[in-house]
Amino acid sequence: MRNAYRLLLIGGNSTMKHTISVLVENKFGVLARIAGLFSGRGYNIDSLSVAETTDPTVSRMTIVVRGDESIIEQITKQLNKLVDVIKVQDYAGMPFLERELILVKVHTSAQTRPEIMQIADIFRGKIIDVDHSSLTIELTGTSDKIEALLDLLKPFGIRELVRTGKIAIARK
Amino acid sequence: MRNAYRLLLIGGNSTMKHTISVLVENKFGVLARIAGLFSGRGYNIDSLSVAETTDPTVSRMTIVVRGDESIIEQITKQLNKLVDVIKVQDYAGMPFLERELILVKVHTSAQTRPEIMQIADIFRGKIIDVDHSSLTIELTGTSDKIEALLDLLKPFGIRELVRTGKIAIARK
Repeated sequence: MRNAYRLLLIGGNSTMKHTISVLVENKFGVLARIAGLFSGRGYNIDSLSVAETTDPTVSRMTIVVRGDESIIEQITKQLNKLVDVIKVQDYAGMPFLERELILVKVHTSAQTRPEIMQIADIFRGKIIDVDHSSLTIELTGTSDKIEALLDLLKPFGIRELVRTGKIAIARK
Repeated sequence: MRNAYRLLLIGGNSTMKHTISVLVENKFGVLARIAGLFSGRGYNIDSLSVAETTDPTVSRMTIVVRGDESIIEQITKQLNKLVDVIKVQDYAGMPFLERELILVKVHTSAQTRPEIMQIADIFRGKIIDVDHSSLTIELTGTSDKIEALLDLLKPFGIRELVRTGKIAIARK
């Protein structure tokens, strides 16, 4: 965290992560245009989630990108100019809550199953499926927590993994 | 569920929901190309999540779309032809687990707070933030469960809502 703060002070650093929330009209092609805006500038999106809000005509996207401050600022300005974009919010430098969800299927044997169940339990993950040679764990948390669980599970063999990407909400 | 099964048997119905998983090379522009494939055919994406897998060069997308069987089949065929697409899986007609995550900020007063906390508790949601006039609830579950919570919270006033969109994993 101290490092992130320092990067913010010294400005432009290519490894700085930005979490950007975009409210958009729920229309054909909006997602393609927005994704194109990032890729057109050579910025890969780390993760992206988009789903409806309480208003079915409006969707909300949460985009995580790494990039130079000034370029991200240009992109958010361009996003704001798109007809179907209602609101853009970059959470950099403001208090916000972030969460991510994963489903992970881990290889198990009769010997390793108790240990994997213990690990899931410590992280307050839920076991949502089981068969003879695997367990499927559901976990919600910050990206750090999720990475920590995955690190512990890797030695057992991860068969399948799906994650939502980060979503965020302002604290105020 | 019985309805969904019936739709599958009689084929093409415009309201059928498809959950499609796409493994892609984590490169510039892949997301824009895939989103364009859907919007170019007039198909709106209900929700989309994309994030890295255990291999940082590979991302996994979960896409939920409504549409006619035959057109969805065409789209998955076209997806398979894209250079950066590694694997496409349509979960229609096979057993799979689905989950979604939401963060919802609800308006509260001293009078309504206990009731909202009770509702969150019944759904096994977590309260992750509180201030004088709001509570922020985190909930993971199937889309049905999430819709049920939102229906109950709406009368209190939903200030902000962010959802990840559905992710899915095969049961076998």
